[in-house]
Amino acid sequence: MNALGLNCPIARALGVIGERWTPLIVRDLLNRGSARFRWLQQSLEGISPNTLSARLKQLEDAGVVEKRMYQSNPPRAEYVLTDRGKELGDLIYALAKWGMVHTKAPPKPK
Amino acid sequence: MNALGLNCPIARALGVIGERWTPLIVRDLLNRGSARFRWLQQSLEGISPNTLSARLKQLEDAGVVEKRMYQSNPPRAEYVLTDRGKELGDLIYALAKWGMVHTKAPPKPK
Repeated sequence: MNALGLNCPIARALGVIGERWTPLIVRDLLNRGSARFRWLQQSLEGISPNTLSARLKQLEDAGVVEKRMYQSNPPRAEYVLTDRGKELGDLIYALAKWGMVHTKAPPKPK
Repeated sequence: MNALGLNCPIARALGVIGERWTPLIVRDLLNRGSARFRWLQQSLEGISPNTLSARLKQLEDAGVVEKRMYQSNPPRAEYVLTDRGKELGDLIYALAKWGMVHTKAPPKPK
């Protein structure tokens, strides 16, 4: 049947970044350079701390995101993209381009 | 905080094609040109008919996919991408490129 199935590179990439919220975490880190947990939580209105925590852990395990301590006392961490993560830029750009052309912005509040 | 939030074009594009299975449906239709329900169901091993049906309906409603009757007696339908759907090609290509470089193919069965 000549199907691509679930082991093609596209399906494998989606296995890493295809879950809900994950592309938006990558977007925020690309846009901002680095971000703390609480900042991400505020940016992604509606995400629960447990879900954000799980997504960041998945991205760390996949080598897409790195957790960096920027202060030791009290300990404070921030998240940055690895080189592998930065290479998702093309993907985020393709989403942005399509979204700009084919989806409507909500009306501005007066 | 200069957050992009949930109304940026990226988040809006994900609202259309960000759900599980949806990018793979687009992949299959790009790759094949047109496909019947049953073919898609076999390609996307593990998808339930209800989920496939719901995803196709969402994509039709968003103007990404079109359902076309190619035979009337008995009635038979197939799915194709609209022009708007074909413009998701860049996105699928970006996923494929990243997946090829950064994810591993499973070992071939002997």
